[in-house]
Amino acid sequence: MYRAPVEDIAFTLKHIVGLKAALEEGIFSDLDEDVVDAILQEAGRFATDEVAPAREAGDRNGSVLENKAVTTPPGWKELYRRWIEGGWNALQGPEAYGGQGLPAMLGVAALEMWNSGSMAFALGPTLTMGAVEAIEKHATEALKRTYLEKLVSGEWMGTMNLTEPQAGSDLAALRTRAERRDDGSYRIFGQKIFITYGEHDFTDNIVHLVLARLADAPEGTRGISLFLVPKFLVEPDGSLGRRNDLFCAGLEEKLGIHASPTCTMIYGDGSVEGEEAGAVGWLIGEENRGLACMFTMMNNARLAVGIQGVAIAEAAFQKALAYANERRQGKASSYHGEGMAPIVHHPDIQRTLLTMQALTQTARAICYACAYATDRARAAEGDDKQHWQERANLLTPLAKAFSTDIGVEVASMGVQVHGGMGFIEETGAAALLRDARIAPIYEGTNGIQAIDLVTRKLPQSGGDHVLTYIAELEAIAAELRNSNLAGFGITANVLDEALADLIEATQFLQQCVSEGRMDEALAGATPYLRLFSLAAGGAYLVRGALAAGGTRTALCRFFAENMLGETAALKRSVMDGADSLADAGKGLISA
Amino acid sequence: MYRAPVEDIAFTLKHIVGLKAALEEGIFSDLDEDVVDAILQEAGRFATDEVAPAREAGDRNGSVLENKAVTTPPGWKELYRRWIEGGWNALQGPEAYGGQGLPAMLGVAALEMWNSGSMAFALGPTLTMGAVEAIEKHATEALKRTYLEKLVSGEWMGTMNLTEPQAGSDLAALRTRAERRDDGSYRIFGQKIFITYGEHDFTDNIVHLVLARLADAPEGTRGISLFLVPKFLVEPDGSLGRRNDLFCAGLEEKLGIHASPTCTMIYGDGSVEGEEAGAVGWLIGEENRGLACMFTMMNNARLAVGIQGVAIAEAAFQKALAYANERRQGKASSYHGEGMAPIVHHPDIQRTLLTMQALTQTARAICYACAYATDRARAAEGDDKQHWQERANLLTPLAKAFSTDIGVEVASMGVQVHGGMGFIEETGAAALLRDARIAPIYEGTNGIQAIDLVTRKLPQSGGDHVLTYIAELEAIAAELRNSNLAGFGITANVLDEALADLIEATQFLQQCVSEGRMDEALAGATPYLRLFSLAAGGAYLVRGALAAGGTRTALCRFFAENMLGETAALKRSVMDGADSLADAGKGLISA
Repeated sequence: MYRAPVEDIAFTLKHIVGLKAALEEGIFSDLDEDVVDAILQEAGRFATDEVAPAREAGDRNGSVLENKAVTTPPGWKELYRRWIEGGWNALQGPEAYGGQGLPAMLGVAALEMWNSGSMAFALGPTLTMGAVEAIEKHATEALKRTYLEKLVSGEWMGTMNLTEPQAGSDLAALRTRAERRDDGSYRIFGQKIFITYGEHDFTDNIVHLVLARLADAPEGTRGISLFLVPKFLVEPDGSLGRRNDLFCAGLEEKLGIHASPTCTMIYGDGSVEGEEAGAVGWLIGEENRGLACMFTMMNNARLAVGIQGVAIAEAAFQKALAYANERRQGKASSYHGEGMAPIVHHPDIQRTLLTMQALTQTARAICYACAYATDRARAAEGDDKQHWQERANLLTPLAKAFSTDIGVEVASMGVQVHGGMGFIEETGAAALLRDARIAPIYEGTNGIQAIDLVTRKLPQSGGDHVLTYIAELEAIAAELRNSNLAGFGITANVLDEALADLIEATQFLQQCVSEGRMDEALAGATPYLRLFSLAAGGAYLVRGALAAGGTRTALCRFFAENMLGETAALKRSVMDGADSLADAGKGLISA
Repeated sequence: MYRAPVEDIAFTLKHIVGLKAALEEGIFSDLDEDVVDAILQEAGRFATDEVAPAREAGDRNGSVLENKAVTTPPGWKELYRRWIEGGWNALQGPEAYGGQGLPAMLGVAALEMWNSGSMAFALGPTLTMGAVEAIEKHATEALKRTYLEKLVSGEWMGTMNLTEPQAGSDLAALRTRAERRDDGSYRIFGQKIFITYGEHDFTDNIVHLVLARLADAPEGTRGISLFLVPKFLVEPDGSLGRRNDLFCAGLEEKLGIHASPTCTMIYGDGSVEGEEAGAVGWLIGEENRGLACMFTMMNNARLAVGIQGVAIAEAAFQKALAYANERRQGKASSYHGEGMAPIVHHPDIQRTLLTMQALTQTARAICYACAYATDRARAAEGDDKQHWQERANLLTPLAKAFSTDIGVEVASMGVQVHGGMGFIEETGAAALLRDARIAPIYEGTNGIQAIDLVTRKLPQSGGDHVLTYIAELEAIAAELRNSNLAGFGITANVLDEALADLIEATQFLQQCVSEGRMDEALAGATPYLRLFSLAAGGAYLVRGALAAGGTRTALCRFFAENMLGETAALKRSVMDGADSLADAGKGLISA
């Protein structure tokens, strides 16, 4: 059973990504170490004792649609109730609307633990937080007054309605229509798919944020507007009014996250008797500027998905480690007890477990470094603010794509450690793999993250920002070299090589982009993102080992001597691979 | 929908692994190219038209247990009937018992296609073939007369009963008991788990091969005997007699291969009214020599699982390629048509598809090279026979582990290419990933394959056999270099480097084994197996490209310039990784 790794998360925040030093400098004036520890402890307790035990029933029963109403799995409604009563939904919410206004670091930390407990559960509140952010930043005061407090507390939940059958990665293809009404409201007509928690029984009302197009809007992404469309209209006194013209027409049968209802939503179908057809909605931000509103929360949403990868990897590692210490087969030189050896003694099983652990910790460090940058940006001004905002921008695609890729890899290794039992659903290892598989896809596929990294993040500040970041990573390698500490083996050399690979590949891609050789840049994007993540992750492991020693040093060395060498091949693929890709790629295209 | 890649398989056999040259030399006297082509064509037609369409219903409905009887999915019994009527079960069976006695190459080729059509379907006959082999090689004439003809035709099916709850990878821990009876028969008592097709409605009788232990047997693996235990006893005239004391007590709820019933089998529980308890069985081979009987068919069984990896990868690639040509999102420089570009035009999607294709083809070449070696061994005498037997032994762990590893990887990439649709079960991409995940586990986990490669296969012929094989691969690289053909980019250089990595790592591990540094050998086994497979697979892709040019050259170059560089990091992990693994591994062991 999952046990929240509170100490590991606290260590990562304080000693790897820099929170301790920042607290000592007084950068986060409202925060001190005791508050951080207390919140992590309490969130960890709730994730361990309340969320994780609900996972299996959620996976097994799933959410069910009947007569346009969705019933969540047994016990889940009560779990959600306890969760909002604990104040967990309000953790990051704005203080003006009842939130605790805590930094992103703590929000992400809590989110990691909820997701390890049950990704299908944590997903709903993640979307509510996105809705809160969009409304707070872009909606009118009237909308804020009506909706924000209840969304912050979790009394109502929020959703994001972007995807349509023909418009997934390419939102320019959206067709959902919006019509203006004289009273300042709009009417929405169209179909949205893959709407997470689009309908459920957790809350009395559901606040949908819907992307749609006005009839006179420009084509493409510059003609998309964002609307707030509640399931039940809200009366001036805050009570619920009539049902809005929208409903859930179907649930997807998915590989994983069964408890999370993935809805097809129909807007404006004339489903409310006696009312004119059209779902009543209100504009958020300006007309035709809907995508800009979405982009302001995209970094946070992507980081929230990235942490899902870390969360699944952590849960899979814990489960595999426990099994490997319990299951006995064969003999092993390091086992001197009676009978068969626990399989954790076999070197090949150790390799798998250490690989799982190292990948989890590298991805975790990248995600928390990203959250830390977000918080620093919020606390800073001027150039400093831009610096930290660019840092968050840079790390977001790494956090999203690398973490969710390794989430799948680590969950798959977890199945393997369990042997035949891993393939049996009762064991729960396979369920983690099934859940993990969505994270590299949604909130921008990992391919799109890689493209974003190369085409939009590397050019930040004329290309300087990323190089400054890599220089910081090099300083970690230099600190290791100068420390003369024992136990690191050839870690310093390997990290130096990896960072040299990263610089070469970075400058190559920056040149491709600046010279408009876009196909070369696009071809190298995915191996570059992995190269970047491994090198950055390796540096973070070193920083942790320098701070703590012991098993952190041993794991860091394992990572360097067994896994970090991959960067050379990735660099080669980035710098020399595009031509052969373009050549062979032609053979894939149907006549 | 899957379409059997008959030409690709025929090309691999003839031009990559050497069948064409062998036929011209007259090595397979009974075989000619026309026969090979005709069988592949017909098997391909059946796999495409009959097996593949049954996959989805099989996955959705699964097999169901009620009153100790298992009902297979709708239409599956009829499919099996048509399949045996087509003579497909008898393809490799001994001619003396009605089989066609065709070489392993063709058996594996057909098996690839059945598995691409539906792995859950192909799995049953795979086990029957194993039973046929064990009985033919080791059973008495009387047993052969009674059982072989019906098992060869497929009128009855066979199973393998090895695993018990405490005995998976380590068969020494077996507890199922056998007792001698005066009439030469035995009575079997015990519980077996994970028994594939242990009970079903395809055939009137099921012939179980069961590993069990006599009371006076030595401990460990030298005290295990193999028994034939039919579901229904067989009368002297060949008709079915009374029910034997065995039954299916449960089906596992699994991640994938839902249609394949995975049974808990109870032997000797007194389940037949009016009969003494004990399942009636007959010895195969000698008492306490059961594992030796199993080992004679282990290579073939492992290759049969390896080809499952290739089969799933092929099916996943075809599905993803079709989707990428159909689905449109965004713009791409290589697309000049109207509207959004088919996503196959995006370089990042091309990278994923080419990676899938290249991995599929490398694994396929390794599997067919292994089958070819088996057939050469069968056709040869003396030293030549030993050479080819050692070749088959060497390639078996690569075929099993590398192919099933890439089966999972390619199926996962296939889900990714589908974007959000990939996570929806209806699409079928996720089902391939679910099915693929068992293959790295059963028939000896891939970790055990790697250990087998390093500790038992590298020392063959005093260490010379593997070096001879690598020299053959080097000759392919030299042929490429000498050819001066265009379009290969830096393939020759990269392949030379990969083979140099392979030689270094091989000699290092040989030294570890010969000096008894076993933990170092065990630590490096898994990265070594992948290094070996990539290098060998790269050489095979070159051989195919030298023979055919065109898209094979382009894919070969893509593989070399984007994927083969990984060997350097793998070599490093093999040669320098053991110490850090042992150090960090200690931290995993519970106090």
